[in-house]
Amino acid sequence: MEMTFRWYGEDDPVKLEHIAQIPGMKGIVSAIYDIPVGEEWPVENIRALKRRVEEVGLRLSVIESVPVHEDIKLGLPTRDRYIENYANTLRNLGNAGVPVVCYNFMPVFDWTRSDLNFELPDGSTTLIYEEETIRRMDPKLGELALPGWDTSYGEGGLGPLLEKYEEVDEEKLWENLAYFIERIIPAAEESGVKMAIHPDDPPWPIFGLPRIMTNRDNLERFLNLHDSPCHGLTLCSGSLGCDPKNDFVEMVRYFGGVRDRVHFAHLRNVKITGDKSFRESGHLSEWGSLDFYEIVKAYTDYGFDGPFRSDHGRMIWGETGRAGYGLYDRALGAVYINGLAEATTKAKQAPEKSK
Amino acid sequence: MEMTFRWYGEDDPVKLEHIAQIPGMKGIVSAIYDIPVGEEWPVENIRALKRRVEEVGLRLSVIESVPVHEDIKLGLPTRDRYIENYANTLRNLGNAGVPVVCYNFMPVFDWTRSDLNFELPDGSTTLIYEEETIRRMDPKLGELALPGWDTSYGEGGLGPLLEKYEEVDEEKLWENLAYFIERIIPAAEESGVKMAIHPDDPPWPIFGLPRIMTNRDNLERFLNLHDSPCHGLTLCSGSLGCDPKNDFVEMVRYFGGVRDRVHFAHLRNVKITGDKSFRESGHLSEWGSLDFYEIVKAYTDYGFDGPFRSDHGRMIWGETGRAGYGLYDRALGAVYINGLAEATTKAKQAPEKSK
Repeated sequence: MEMTFRWYGEDDPVKLEHIAQIPGMKGIVSAIYDIPVGEEWPVENIRALKRRVEEVGLRLSVIESVPVHEDIKLGLPTRDRYIENYANTLRNLGNAGVPVVCYNFMPVFDWTRSDLNFELPDGSTTLIYEEETIRRMDPKLGELALPGWDTSYGEGGLGPLLEKYEEVDEEKLWENLAYFIERIIPAAEESGVKMAIHPDDPPWPIFGLPRIMTNRDNLERFLNLHDSPCHGLTLCSGSLGCDPKNDFVEMVRYFGGVRDRVHFAHLRNVKITGDKSFRESGHLSEWGSLDFYEIVKAYTDYGFDGPFRSDHGRMIWGETGRAGYGLYDRALGAVYINGLAEATTKAKQAPEKSK
Repeated sequence: MEMTFRWYGEDDPVKLEHIAQIPGMKGIVSAIYDIPVGEEWPVENIRALKRRVEEVGLRLSVIESVPVHEDIKLGLPTRDRYIENYANTLRNLGNAGVPVVCYNFMPVFDWTRSDLNFELPDGSTTLIYEEETIRRMDPKLGELALPGWDTSYGEGGLGPLLEKYEEVDEEKLWENLAYFIERIIPAAEESGVKMAIHPDDPPWPIFGLPRIMTNRDNLERFLNLHDSPCHGLTLCSGSLGCDPKNDFVEMVRYFGGVRDRVHFAHLRNVKITGDKSFRESGHLSEWGSLDFYEIVKAYTDYGFDGPFRSDHGRMIWGETGRAGYGLYDRALGAVYINGLAEATTKAKQAPEKSK
């Protein structure tokens, strides 16, 4: 397992030089943030990012994300232009030597929480999701008060966009995803880039919008859209793990070990606090609903050697900045996972050694 | 294993509230810092410290250290008064419910380094020891330039104190240690306090002064001075581990597992850089000369349930403060160790579960 860390570029309050001081850190997960969604990323911007990362002794392990234009998810006629740009971006990324690209196919809303600053008893703050709070909002009536969500979305704002999705149900979204995949994966293959779709977060419909990357059956259906080593998954413990019906450890063993289609691992813990409600708990097993030993062991058991990153941390030690993406608690998560990974890897090797 | 953290009291740049936010943190290692060496610690000061620690949801797990007056180590006639004070302090600590006391028996100098701010390639700084640098100093001639060392030592300064030690060779120091132990352990027993001597750091003579808590044979000789569960060890990986002749993992298995005399575990890694020279490397196995998986596994294999603390960290992320005792890298060490401990403990339980 290659330890990596998400960095939002020079504007990130977290310094790249500080990330490089985390014990065991090998790589950076980042993106080009100043190109509008849907446009081609120039190869020179990608190369400059790569050089900057390599200056501090790390490698550019993953691009997270190359965002998918809404017209592609909606299946509009304009999608072909955006798909062509996307394919060119993949070629440019491959050209610069980027091995993995993370993306998602969630309509309109990316990851969603009801509170980004929920205070825990020890004074730290965390991200929570309460279905009750979300249900009370109707974004079509402008009653949207989602923390951290950019209300300047798209041309004409949110209302017209949501209207366009009225024709898109789950099956239509599957169709549009298949159309995208058929055209993108060949470009990824020729560029040597592994595509790794991120599951929906949370893994259930919100605001009446369909969500399809939600469980084992759907991830299986997704992989069956196209048989290629470049067509794979970002397996995210926190996204899939907040639905108690998902057996996340089994998913690692199956999609990683059996299918060999996990190209990137997101690792964070969640504490399920009720029906469709959860708290991001910090990574420690005893704090959350997921057993991090079992998860990390599932990865090392089949010899996963791809990138992983600790995901959303709490805000601790007085840190301020981008909610979930502070330096401190994510770094603590990363080295905790590294301890679990070292132990499970060496335990696996020990019987072989003693032969 | 109970995760603890050393805290130097309200003057410590590291805040108690921040320590309490470290995932898995259970206890505090501290001391009463405003009582002169050799005097009795009032029970009220101890209780106040305990209350303060419990305010943030932690427990006062270990006192480190109750320092031993030089007259005791020198075997001077005045020692009896200081030993009586020491015994009373133990009674007061037991009275307040403190379970473990760490101490050491190093003449004049406590832990010693040649540089406290050695810069590593990633811009972090660490503590190093180079025998060559130490050898060039003669403290009797006032040629002492030890970083972090309090030059205002004792009455009349350092010269007269070093002269007194001219009569004290290793065997004499053993005699003085035995005299102390015989009188202290009964007080510890009646108070329910476990005494845990810290090995010498580094584990070889410096400036011509004897050092005896240095290796397996000597620790064994020490334990044989008095047969009591209250007469035990602080096993420090960094102190013993910088002598390649010491098999630290075997020491854990023997002194902990077989003898049941390890009452406190100090965990830090060292990179041996030459004969009697080393660098404090950060905790990660791949950075140091010690395999932290093997060390933590040795503890969990025999079911160690006492306190451990991560020891000296580097200075990272721009932190300033007490060299080796910043918040950041010690916290990273603590959770890394917690990952190793969780994995080795659960791996041990797994075969039992599946029966």
